[in-house]
Parts: sequence; structure tokens; C-alpha cells
Amino acid sequence: ALIVYRLPWTWKCSKLLMKFIHAGLNTIAMILAIVSMVAVFEYHNARNIPNMYSLHSWIGLTAVIFYSLQLFLGFAVFLLPFAPVPLRAALMPIHVYSGLTIFATVIATALMGITEKLVFSLKNPAYSALPPEATFVNCLGLLLVIFGALILWMASRPHWKRPLEENTKILRPIGGTPEGTEAESTMTDGSNVEKPDLRISSEAARKQNLKLDEAGQRSTM
Amino acid sequence: ALIVYRLPWTWKCSKLLMKFIHAGLNTIAMILAIVSMVAVFEYHNARNIPNMYSLHSWIGLTAVIFYSLQLFLGFAVFLLPFAPVPLRAALMPIHVYSGLTIFATVIATALMGITEKLVFSLKNPAYSALPPEATFVNCLGLLLVIFGALILWMASRPHWKRPLEENTKILRPIGGTPEGTEAESTMTDGSNVEKPDLRISSEAARKQNLKLDEAGQRSTM
Repeated sequence: ALIVYRLPWTWKCSKLLMKFIHAGLNTIAMILAIVSMVAVFEYHNARNIPNMYSLHSWIGLTAVIFYSLQLFLGFAVFLLPFAPVPLRAALMPIHVYSGLTIFATVIATALMGITEKLVFSLKNPAYSALPPEATFVNCLGLLLVIFGALILWMASRPHWKRPLEENTKILRPIGGTPEGTEAESTMTDGSNVEKPDLRISSEAARKQNLKLDEAGQRSTM
Repeated sequence: ALIVYRLPWTWKCSKLLMKFIHAGLNTIAMILAIVSMVAVFEYHNARNIPNMYSLHSWIGLTAVIFYSLQLFLGFAVFLLPFAPVPLRAALMPIHVYSGLTIFATVIATALMGITEKLVFSLKNPAYSALPPEATFVNCLGLLLVIFGALILWMASRPHWKRPLEENTKILRPIGGTPEGTEAESTMTDGSNVEKPDLRISSEAARKQNLKLDEAGQRSTM
């Protein structure tokens, strides 16, 4: 859900469809989070294990609360048509930052949960003897860190942003000459001269996108 | 060390002094990391506790290895005067991303370490009974997450970047008129007209900085 806007195949979809994919995947993730939380509480109650004592549970619950807030605010501000553009522009950097921070916090919570589970479950041989299960789950934990780092890399690359077709079309006069396009891209960045003509338009759109981002506005606003 | 370049008082220092502060603080952190790792291994050996079995230790050692690589490469590329500018420009986004990712990984490792310590040390009453020590340390863990989130917020705000005085001075002709400055800032972003004249120059420098950042170049390069 985090990198929907970074996948080139989604650049062909309309902005609204992309928003629906982003919101839909996050809603599915939220439902799964609630289901798993209910499962945890029922498991604890069935086994007479206390609830909400560990740091894992505290940080995990905080992350789920912020995630539901993020989902609700994202739905209200960016999906419903009522919020004015300046409000969307002001909230977008916070929305992006919150999303990435919640994602990183969830990875950290999962790592703490894995640690707890290994300590509690491995008794004979103990976790400290590093039985094969422990090595296997440790590797899963390392993969989780690598997965998180890759997603954050994809989400934070400015040139992987979706080009801003709609706004660029509005800003550029209908039937604008290729010279106009080239002038615009030169104004933004002088390095486009070496690129083939076919790519200039999308490059210019991407630069435009980057420029708007400076003011807190985004292609996915 | 991460946010040295985001503190307004450092904007008055020379670029080289800021680099020295950044590199110096990170070197101190690296020395402390090595001292603490030696302490952990000696403690384990003295108590006959196995080393390097837990996920905490695996991820922690990975983070320390990447941190030392980051420090070595940062020193060789950005502090020593031998690396050419295109190489610095290409490596800077990777350096920034690695720094932030290592920072987040270290926070996650600390949280796993806290979890382990609470589980192993609290026996009577157990961690699950949530004695006052457990509540206290859980709160410390939550504060650690808040600290990490704040640092990542500060480090990722584009308008908190240090203005690029040196390069702007080079790009602008000596004795340039205020009109020239205004034209430059208007070309970059049309929203500067409402700002007082005194701030236009530093605003333009900041925009310039943002523009260079798109090409992977940074004020701190």
C-alpha cells in the first residue's frame, strides 16, 4: 500500500483509481490488524496470560491507534471531495511522514514480538542454544528488516514519484508547441538537453512534480 | 549527529566546520558503540551466557557493521578532498538514506534489547505482572520511539535544510541587483512575493538547495 504511487504500471491509472488502490489496500491491512489483535487477546484470555504488559504490546497498540487515525484522516481529507486544496497540501507531507513512521514502528513491533516469542517458546533446547528454529526465525527477522529498508528506499526516491500529468496539462496551454515544453523543462533543470525528445514531456512532468513537492503539494494530493 | 545540518545555528558555520561536527559526533558514537559491544561480550563471557544467538544481537551487529562502513565511506568521499563532485552527488542520497535507515534499525535493536532484558531480569514479580520497573522501562521504550520519530521528522523536512550560501554566491553575479534576486526566486517558485525582502535571499538559496537536491546534490556535499 505504501508504494502504490511508486509503481510505474500505476502511472497509467487515473489519480482517483490510484487513491482507491492505496486506500483499499490500507483498509484490508487495517482489517487484518484488528483480526490479529482480537486473536491475540482471545489467545491470552484462553491461556490466562495477562494482556498489554509488554513494551511490544504498548508500541504495537500505539501504532494501530495511529494507523486507524491515519486511515480515517486520509479518507476524510484526500478521498472525500470536501477538503480544500490548501488543506490537502498542508496535510500531505504529514500524511506521508506518518505513513512511513507507522510502517517503521510496525516493523520494530514485529521484531520485538518475534524476540518475545522465541524467548518464551524455546525451552528445551533454549533460545540461547540457538536451535534450528531460532536460526530460522532470526533469519526471518533479518529479512523483515531488509524488506522494511527496501520499502523505505522505494518510497523516499524523488525520481520514482508518479509524473503529474493532470496538473501539467492544466498549467500548459492546450496545443502547446514542443518548444514550450522544452523551455519549461530547461527552466526547471538545465540537464534535460541530452535526453531523447520522447522523454522530455514526462521528465518535465516529473520535475514539475518535484517543484510542487517543495511547497508541500503532491501528485497524489 | 543526524540533524547537525538542520539546526539554524550551524547555518552560520562554514560547510567544513559542519562536516567536522557531523563526522566528529558520529566518530564519538562509533567509539561508544564499540565500547558497549566489548562490554556486552565480556559480561556474557563472565556469566557464561552464549554470544550472538538472539535476533537483537544479529540485527545490532549488522547495524554496527553498516554504521562503520557508513562512517568510513563518508570520511573517504565527503571529508577527504579527493572524491570528484559527480561521485559525491551520486553517493549523497545513498549516504542520507543509509544514515536514517541505520538510525531506525538501531532504535529497533534497542527496543528488542529492552524487551529481552525485561523478560530475562524480572522474575519475582515477573514482567507479565507489570511491576513498577516494567512500567518505567516500557515508558522509556515509548520515549525512544518518540525520539526516533522526532529526529526522522527533523531530518526529512526539506525546508529545514541549510541554505546553500556558497553555491548561490557563485551562481549569482557579484553585486547582483535585488531585482535579479527576486527574478531568480520567482523562477523557482512564484509564492515568494508575500515574503519580506530580507528573507528573499535566504529563501532563494533554500529553493536552490532543493533544486540541486533533485539531482542528488546537497548543500552538505
